[in-house]
Amino acid sequence: MMRLDVVTIFPEYLEPLNVSLVGKARARGQLDVRIHDLREWTHDRHNTVDDTPYGGGPGMVMKPDPWGEALDSIIESGDGSEDASGDGGARPVLVVPTPSGKPFTQQLAVELSEKPWLVFTPARYEGIDRRVIEEYGDRLDVREVSIGDYVLAGGEAPVLVMVEAIARLLPGVLGNAESHRDDSFAPGAMADLLEGPVYTKPPQWRGRGIPDVLLSGHHGKIARWRRDEAFRRTVLNRPDLIRRADPAAFDKKDRETLSILGWAPGPDGRFGPLAPDVEE
Amino acid sequence: MMRLDVVTIFPEYLEPLNVSLVGKARARGQLDVRIHDLREWTHDRHNTVDDTPYGGGPGMVMKPDPWGEALDSIIESGDGSEDASGDGGARPVLVVPTPSGKPFTQQLAVELSEKPWLVFTPARYEGIDRRVIEEYGDRLDVREVSIGDYVLAGGEAPVLVMVEAIARLLPGVLGNAESHRDDSFAPGAMADLLEGPVYTKPPQWRGRGIPDVLLSGHHGKIARWRRDEAFRRTVLNRPDLIRRADPAAFDKKDRETLSILGWAPGPDGRFGPLAPDVEE
Repeated sequence: MMRLDVVTIFPEYLEPLNVSLVGKARARGQLDVRIHDLREWTHDRHNTVDDTPYGGGPGMVMKPDPWGEALDSIIESGDGSEDASGDGGARPVLVVPTPSGKPFTQQLAVELSEKPWLVFTPARYEGIDRRVIEEYGDRLDVREVSIGDYVLAGGEAPVLVMVEAIARLLPGVLGNAESHRDDSFAPGAMADLLEGPVYTKPPQWRGRGIPDVLLSGHHGKIARWRRDEAFRRTVLNRPDLIRRADPAAFDKKDRETLSILGWAPGPDGRFGPLAPDVEE
Repeated sequence: MMRLDVVTIFPEYLEPLNVSLVGKARARGQLDVRIHDLREWTHDRHNTVDDTPYGGGPGMVMKPDPWGEALDSIIESGDGSEDASGDGGARPVLVVPTPSGKPFTQQLAVELSEKPWLVFTPARYEGIDRRVIEEYGDRLDVREVSIGDYVLAGGEAPVLVMVEAIARLLPGVLGNAESHRDDSFAPGAMADLLEGPVYTKPPQWRGRGIPDVLLSGHHGKIARWRRDEAFRRTVLNRPDLIRRADPAAFDKKDRETLSILGWAPGPDGRFGPLAPDVEE
């Protein structure tokens, strides 16, 4: 069973971890989630967790002491062997959400889903005193990660995102093992392509039908149509994914589809638009 | 006051919108948030919202009918003038979280923060029947957006992320107008650079001090140190940001710093690493 600890000054923000996929995984004993209030490790009357930044400037910085005490306490609650070297079985990976981190990707979600124990440290204000990251970086595998290029009020929403991305990869959490197969960003035939449109009953809705091919029962044609639609969507919304894709993954029909969409291989074999893309 | 509607099959997942920054903005009347349960617009005994995909394959697709009824009902609850053309004041922008969408960026957060009314449609399963997007795309400004390259169980966590990113940009929501200034990804001197480390009291913590320059009281030196640290962090964690940055934004000292970090201008003037970056 994977263990997840989260240290936060807004424990109630993590309530969604009781709901839906993660909530069910906890109820089934596949996930041991422990939410901690950082203020439990403060010792003043006001439960102070922040102070002004050295060097001046706006905003506040989270003090190192409460984080150090919280993390020590959580690490010590593991199954002992804090000084066991090498295997890391009894040591958590520390996941620090920060806009200054490396991008959180599906690949990282897969990697983290294989760890036995993760500790998340969502911060508020201008972030956590740097010395905390250095202190635990000397002892633990510390990952500073960013879920995207936008500014949030704190790391709690990113923790919800990361825990969901990781939890759905754990064995038995998704009902149907196949449901990973066609995921956008998953390895395999659809790697580097966004998923195209999906349809369900009724066949007519507000005067709108569904593409004939989906009713044909012809699996090959349906797969081809889906791949063509995936190319169409990717060219429109994420041209960067096509640009960096390995062209060896494109078959003859893929190249025809890309050509129809106005894309062609450049000198290095990778595909780019024939005309400048005004969307970019 | 900005109005936000969210339609979901997991209303309880949106509880964090009662907490912290967004919760306070609602309490102060800066934000009118309305959470709707999609199942209220189903008419069968089981409140069915999904069905099998046309064309086969794993997973389920969200049926168009409940979404259509829900969105019609929400749109009609606006201040009338559904047929008013042009100004869009009485029409919401429809924000559809999907891994197949365009990237959600700080720029998009700013743009959406200027709209009077947003409706979010977080989906589950393999997504919403495409005809729903087409139907409302004919009448409304529809944005299909993705918060990052990872796979989640549903769109609710992305809605929490987007609402937080948007809400903190609304007038009066952040206490101190200055706190936007040094944000990573914000326009200005730090555009395209990640923020470097921050420190607060005490000056010594577990044998670790703070950089002398931060105690110097010399504003120019402190600003320079922070910018150098920002370059250092960005080169390490997000070399893509330096690569695509406009080199006209780099001053003489920036170029020296980049040179020390092993980066130099290429034929087009943009900076790249002198040696291949094994981190990538």
